[in-house]
Amino acid sequence: MLEFAKEEISAFLNKNNIKELLFVPFAQNNFDDYTNKIKGIIDHWGFSVTGLHTYPEPKKAVSSAKAIFIGGGNTFLLLDRLYTHNLVDLIKTRVLDGKLAYIGSSAGTNVATKSIHTTNDMPIIYPPSFEAIGLVPFNINPHYTDKNENEMHKGETRDQRISEYISMPHANPVLGLREGSILHVDGNSLILKGVAGAVLFQKGGKKTEYSVGQNISFLLEEQKSY
Amino acid sequence: MLEFAKEEISAFLNKNNIKELLFVPFAQNNFDDYTNKIKGIIDHWGFSVTGLHTYPEPKKAVSSAKAIFIGGGNTFLLLDRLYTHNLVDLIKTRVLDGKLAYIGSSAGTNVATKSIHTTNDMPIIYPPSFEAIGLVPFNINPHYTDKNENEMHKGETRDQRISEYISMPHANPVLGLREGSILHVDGNSLILKGVAGAVLFQKGGKKTEYSVGQNISFLLEEQKSY
Repeated sequence: MLEFAKEEISAFLNKNNIKELLFVPFAQNNFDDYTNKIKGIIDHWGFSVTGLHTYPEPKKAVSSAKAIFIGGGNTFLLLDRLYTHNLVDLIKTRVLDGKLAYIGSSAGTNVATKSIHTTNDMPIIYPPSFEAIGLVPFNINPHYTDKNENEMHKGETRDQRISEYISMPHANPVLGLREGSILHVDGNSLILKGVAGAVLFQKGGKKTEYSVGQNISFLLEEQKSY
Repeated sequence: MLEFAKEEISAFLNKNNIKELLFVPFAQNNFDDYTNKIKGIIDHWGFSVTGLHTYPEPKKAVSSAKAIFIGGGNTFLLLDRLYTHNLVDLIKTRVLDGKLAYIGSSAGTNVATKSIHTTNDMPIIYPPSFEAIGLVPFNINPHYTDKNENEMHKGETRDQRISEYISMPHANPVLGLREGSILHVDGNSLILKGVAGAVLFQKGGKKTEYSVGQNISFLLEEQKSY
């Protein structure tokens, strides 16, 4: 877990001269266990991880942090808790102002985008909105696969699900991230990194493959322009 | 499609002396196509199917219908449209008063239960609530399978997803319906029919298998009692 991202995360933090990482375990229910699991990996890389749940005032902890890592689990639960603690706008503002480095995995990447409309998770709680932090002007679908996972029953394929969303009037473009794919945003630059590519779904059914190393900065422009 | 349910649906409608069926295609986007597909099957069984979308006033059509069939597609889209047309309470009242026979498949069964928290669908639209029609005091998970659909990537199994929900304080019991399973509710009686069984998930992680033909009427009592 996370080993494929070690070099990227280390370089990202070192470049910004960051030694401490605030971990947000809200997508799962056992905050201590999840934080310790992540700490057990990342501390060995030379960084110090603390869990957001260990601070009496989450807003204050986020306000003074230099880097935040939001982990995976259930996206609905995560977004609901981010709203409960009034962290959505705070994180957005601090990241866009260049004061907070943001790392997310799975549900933690979903909430970094425009909305959670394209999560794969079960809607176990009703959040006040599906709109999310919005660090980028598109949606992602994590764990994207074009394999048919549903041969055993009449469920839909992932592509069918994403197409249902794309056909909605309010839909944003969707970047399907294959397992092991990393998005590296730095100012106006967006590079696809990691060990697997991504697939972009756009209005009208257009589907485009991108491979590791490609510059896809055009995705950071508002959607009307592409 | 639907052939496995032909006998059940026919007997259900004939018993109530019903010849006309109001079809609700709201879980999909092409109302005419979907209605015609269903009509092409069920008209041959000796019933007359009309689409709810063809009536200028959906509330009026539901108010005078004797039987309604809500089809599958996207559960979020379906529930959102039922709320938009103010049909949720109307359907509940008429069904519980014994004036409206209710048939649902897939998303159409999800919305018949307490809430849509246990749908498998992608949340492509934000409905005003996840609470649904509530004809029965539990949730269902349609297309239930205990096969691991996610071997190819790090997604969760269906059982893990349902367990995440069951661990929530607001969770209802969840009946996982295997493909081809039918729930037949008649007053205080609930019988599992069709060609496949079901699995009940309860608080504390209890998981119980039920097979075709079993009387599971206890599920109609309020959840505290079992």
